[in-house]
Amino acid sequence: MKPTIKDVAKKANVSIATVSRILNQLPGYTEETKRKVLEAIEELNYKPNALARGLIGKKTQTIGVLFPYVSSMLSSEILDGIENIAHDRDSSVIVCHTASNGERTMKYLQMLHEKRVDGLIFASSILTEAYYQRMVDMNVPVVLLSTASSHPFPFVKVDDEIAAYSATEYLIQKGHRHIAMVSGSSNDPIAGIPRIEGFKKALKDYQLPCHDHSIIHCNSFGFYDGQRVLPLLLDKYPEATAVFAASDDLAMGVISSAYQLGIAVPQQLSVIGYDNTRSAEMAIPPLTTVAQPLVGLGEAGASMLFEMIDTGESVPSKLMEHYIVERESVKKLE
Amino acid sequence: MKPTIKDVAKKANVSIATVSRILNQLPGYTEETKRKVLEAIEELNYKPNALARGLIGKKTQTIGVLFPYVSSMLSSEILDGIENIAHDRDSSVIVCHTASNGERTMKYLQMLHEKRVDGLIFASSILTEAYYQRMVDMNVPVVLLSTASSHPFPFVKVDDEIAAYSATEYLIQKGHRHIAMVSGSSNDPIAGIPRIEGFKKALKDYQLPCHDHSIIHCNSFGFYDGQRVLPLLLDKYPEATAVFAASDDLAMGVISSAYQLGIAVPQQLSVIGYDNTRSAEMAIPPLTTVAQPLVGLGEAGASMLFEMIDTGESVPSKLMEHYIVERESVKKLE
Repeated sequence: MKPTIKDVAKKANVSIATVSRILNQLPGYTEETKRKVLEAIEELNYKPNALARGLIGKKTQTIGVLFPYVSSMLSSEILDGIENIAHDRDSSVIVCHTASNGERTMKYLQMLHEKRVDGLIFASSILTEAYYQRMVDMNVPVVLLSTASSHPFPFVKVDDEIAAYSATEYLIQKGHRHIAMVSGSSNDPIAGIPRIEGFKKALKDYQLPCHDHSIIHCNSFGFYDGQRVLPLLLDKYPEATAVFAASDDLAMGVISSAYQLGIAVPQQLSVIGYDNTRSAEMAIPPLTTVAQPLVGLGEAGASMLFEMIDTGESVPSKLMEHYIVERESVKKLE
Repeated sequence: MKPTIKDVAKKANVSIATVSRILNQLPGYTEETKRKVLEAIEELNYKPNALARGLIGKKTQTIGVLFPYVSSMLSSEILDGIENIAHDRDSSVIVCHTASNGERTMKYLQMLHEKRVDGLIFASSILTEAYYQRMVDMNVPVVLLSTASSHPFPFVKVDDEIAAYSATEYLIQKGHRHIAMVSGSSNDPIAGIPRIEGFKKALKDYQLPCHDHSIIHCNSFGFYDGQRVLPLLLDKYPEATAVFAASDDLAMGVISSAYQLGIAVPQQLSVIGYDNTRSAEMAIPPLTTVAQPLVGLGEAGASMLFEMIDTGESVPSKLMEHYIVERESVKKLE
């Protein structure tokens, strides 16, 4: 028979409540009592049940993470970072794949609430009023990751506008004057609009043309959209010598379409991506891109969350640095 | 104040144990009692706490999944399938990234045990004796995914030897006579040896040469290994016109190295991969490969696990079908 908390209490001659307080590092007992209880735990080789510990001490050593897609490279690298930190903290990570679906997200929040997770990371999606209210009701710390909101939850992300500006400036510095953009969704306030703004601002600052046809809007940040739109883009803007794609997947789609069309990258068309997922280095040619520190974002988000769980107080939001990774998909024009 | 199980019992005039039995769909009460309890639950708008339900009914509606790497395309697509099924079952998925590290794996098993998960999926790694013993002690259903073992846990995977045979046969049918293999680890009994055996068997059946230098062994199934070994392979086997790579990542490494060496794929060298991860369609040229139904493997593994959880009995192992996905990386020789 495995020893229980009752056995510990009996052996130490204290109440079960006292053992529980000590296990959960709450105040309300003398040092002498604590010593007796710890001795009893050691002698009996008692291992507290995490589930029971959750009920008693309010900590379940579990956090919930909500991603729109679990199977994207972006999500899986961020998850890797989150999981690294959680592992060091002896906490587990429940992964929820919301498919950016409101009903599915609300159901997950209910499930995570029932499981009494210690905190939530909400990643790469738009925080609706309904999600926000539900999270407030759950009364646990929340960190936004690769997204932001006017609601008072701290976030960790890169500055999308400045990063997009850098990508565009990089192409300009390589001698390109006719630069097009393949953007994600133009009404996405997080990853859509700011990247478009950064692109426009760079062209303006360098007094280069930005026509209506300089930007082609996709419905997503995915490979197939990039593949689909390149012919349309080149139809309208045949002078373009370089493309800034708002994600690596879009960039890979552009390169794939160029390959099908017999357009050599980078000799005839330069392409720069955004994200630096693992696919970028595997691309042919290897993709020059604006790197988001994906594993680092996951680690930073999880560290912020655990700090909030430990202290019961909020933490400041954090902007992570982006940087250009130069590979072989951009040609220098003479 | 939120209503508790006590309030329900009081209102329905039954014991708390009876309410618990009804909530957990155990036998031992009349239809009349059940009706009264369900009415009380509805009137009070009582929502059972999943954690308490876990303690009472022995089900936590949580499963644990152990992967060597969370951030590989392979793992993330399998996870997607697992998560689909778990979502339909109102269960959550705790994801553990073992890094194929024994100590880390044992620590995760302890954590999952403490959290009283309803079952485990152990994916893409070798089941050691120590893991096996620990899982038996945990006394929960276990399904092996993309791996197998002599221990009596059911598995779901494709037949690696037959799939490798198919890949090789495909190259032969396209007219190739000098075929090389870039294999993963040659002492891996799951994904290493069977794929090598399938390759050798196909060459033998078609009376084609299989020299020592026809196969080059890597330490992993990763991109960098594929990239590293192509020059070595071509040094020793310059007549080779086609390569079977034992994973898509290896194949992408081979193609990347060929690109650097100025060898055109597929005009000068044909390449077939293994897995059909999402990267395969994004490759330049798009990669012809042996498809494992990755999302399907995840869904099948999770379905098997839930069946075991529901019935308390084991289920038969399952072999999933592989198939060739023809893209553009293999040339037909005249």
